[in-house]
Amino acid sequence: MIAMLRWKAERSVGGLFKKWTLNPNSSVRRFRNNSSRSENHRRHHIIRSPPLLSLDILDAWPANSTHYDPSPSPSSAHCNDKWTARLIDGKSMAEKIQAEIASEVTNMKESIRKVPGLAVILVGERKDSLAYVRNKRIACEEAGIRFVLKELPVSCTEDEVTDALLCFNKDSSIHGILVQLPLPMHLNEEKILNELSLEKDVDGFHPLNIGNLAMIGREPLFIPCTPKGCIELLIRSGVEISGKKAVVIGRSNIVGLPTSLLLQRHHATVSTIHAITDNPEEITRQADILVSAVGVPNLVRGSWLKPGAVVIDVGTFPIKDPNNINGYRLMGDVCMEEAVLVASAITPVPGGVGPMTIAMLLSNTLDAAKRSYNFH
Amino acid sequence: MIAMLRWKAERSVGGLFKKWTLNPNSSVRRFRNNSSRSENHRRHHIIRSPPLLSLDILDAWPANSTHYDPSPSPSSAHCNDKWTARLIDGKSMAEKIQAEIASEVTNMKESIRKVPGLAVILVGERKDSLAYVRNKRIACEEAGIRFVLKELPVSCTEDEVTDALLCFNKDSSIHGILVQLPLPMHLNEEKILNELSLEKDVDGFHPLNIGNLAMIGREPLFIPCTPKGCIELLIRSGVEISGKKAVVIGRSNIVGLPTSLLLQRHHATVSTIHAITDNPEEITRQADILVSAVGVPNLVRGSWLKPGAVVIDVGTFPIKDPNNINGYRLMGDVCMEEAVLVASAITPVPGGVGPMTIAMLLSNTLDAAKRSYNFH
Repeated sequence: MIAMLRWKAERSVGGLFKKWTLNPNSSVRRFRNNSSRSENHRRHHIIRSPPLLSLDILDAWPANSTHYDPSPSPSSAHCNDKWTARLIDGKSMAEKIQAEIASEVTNMKESIRKVPGLAVILVGERKDSLAYVRNKRIACEEAGIRFVLKELPVSCTEDEVTDALLCFNKDSSIHGILVQLPLPMHLNEEKILNELSLEKDVDGFHPLNIGNLAMIGREPLFIPCTPKGCIELLIRSGVEISGKKAVVIGRSNIVGLPTSLLLQRHHATVSTIHAITDNPEEITRQADILVSAVGVPNLVRGSWLKPGAVVIDVGTFPIKDPNNINGYRLMGDVCMEEAVLVASAITPVPGGVGPMTIAMLLSNTLDAAKRSYNFH
Repeated sequence: MIAMLRWKAERSVGGLFKKWTLNPNSSVRRFRNNSSRSENHRRHHIIRSPPLLSLDILDAWPANSTHYDPSPSPSSAHCNDKWTARLIDGKSMAEKIQAEIASEVTNMKESIRKVPGLAVILVGERKDSLAYVRNKRIACEEAGIRFVLKELPVSCTEDEVTDALLCFNKDSSIHGILVQLPLPMHLNEEKILNELSLEKDVDGFHPLNIGNLAMIGREPLFIPCTPKGCIELLIRSGVEISGKKAVVIGRSNIVGLPTSLLLQRHHATVSTIHAITDNPEEITRQADILVSAVGVPNLVRGSWLKPGAVVIDVGTFPIKDPNNINGYRLMGDVCMEEAVLVASAITPVPGGVGPMTIAMLLSNTLDAAKRSYNFH
């Protein structure tokens, strides 16, 4: 009888919301407080748009969060532990694509005596940024794409960055421009990126581009490189996307969001998980295709996966490793040793999505040059 | 042993994809054929963006599709059939909002001797469009918003529509413009809408606006009216969105997509279902908040709902009804008599989302006028 009453109470509206009360110690609490402020604000300005958009909160996924459970994964324990998932070799796929791009660049050069040009603006001397830029330079040079680097000191002004950018905007031999992120804190990233010519935005991060990616019947000028790399990995691995359940972990502007939008354009049924999601593993266990892009090592355990799922690991997190020549090694979001026992195919870290991202940057730069010269 | 082998085969990549083979008689087949063409196309132009975007396919939800099951719903049969969901009264909420807008308009008029102005371009004499425009006119007049209607004959040219639009773009007493859709087939809707001044796009359908709605840290000038109305309904009904599982049925540019994006900005965990989704009811049964926007009467049965879910029914489908003064009545996507036994709260059709959409149009027009006059 008591159970029945409780059941009925929980089904009443009040009960429903009481059940939904969130843990006051979690990061969500900050949001709830903000939300209350927003609520007060809304009462006075009820018809203004911003509160309806809700407040932005940091998608914090601490490694010691409740999502991270270092205990053995139950589902992998039940698996046939001799069976291993196929590794999706992003490195060799990227090399193949880069060779195809190189061939197209040669063709362009022979036909119209032009080559694509990519300009990179690098502010400061962050080690990781220097490494990323070096990789981009090598890839461009191998593909015959002109690479121009503008280096600015960490103390430079916003105007100096913008001036460099406007200069590349005007340069007709430059078809793609990217500002290596993150910028030093004193520079307004959004303001600077807004100056970037849409036709040269090879990163595809402009809101107009994202809007065109989201909308049926529209086409963006560029698909952001990492999401484009993920889809290429799936397509080239023979993974059918249409009609499949896809789950994306993370909703960042540069990976999670555009990957969800792109998967939806490919007619997957997409769910997007973020740091506020309760029991994310309940949702990931339904995924035929799982893309994780949050940068939390081992967040995704074997128990999070549906047997036979295809797993794309976008996470890269540097872990100190004295045995490695660089002094560190990269770890993905997915616990590899457990996942290979459950998934049907999986990308390694490194050597999965990373090389494909650079290949897609070259691909976008080539596309931009072709458009610019009306060369097809 | 055989079972074990089959299990292993199904978990191999080949088996996985064999299992995923789609019904050749379904509408999906058309897409698969297109997909093969796309695949061929891709082989030759592997690094061009468009194929990666996937092909657009019609989200056809025929009423006699497999999703429509006229048999009694098992879950509702198991419910306490005396218990009914709370009706979310969109009509009275909209009236309240419109009264608040009217008060703000009066305030604006007294302070700066200006009122907001909304212009509507109506091409042809479709009965439904005439009715929608009439409702908008009445709502504007009641709120003190100036309403200007430009009527054009069904045979008019694209230039005539664009000229009318450009004229309103320039008119400083007009702060919101909308082109009543659908336009006759001979007119290019996208081309016409692209001419609309962003600052007056009170429908919020411009890709730049949708991109800003999608991206964390960005703000659109306008939230599309129906999605904004859905969120207002939830907020004003005291429904917590953050951390909840939300499912949106439909991914149209004007309702499904922006509603998913807006719910995600409110920190719901969002899944978007479309006509290619297998077993949509498996996904909807997990939803704390369900928004349906496809226009298929009774698509959502009681068995599709999680007990205690909040249901927002955006569907409107006219059904002949000689007893009704208009000769027809509107039906939503949700089977109301079953849903009220399972849900905790639900919007009726009519009288739910519809009136809120008009209220949000007035709200967006008021916002546009405030921005234009820098009046807050």
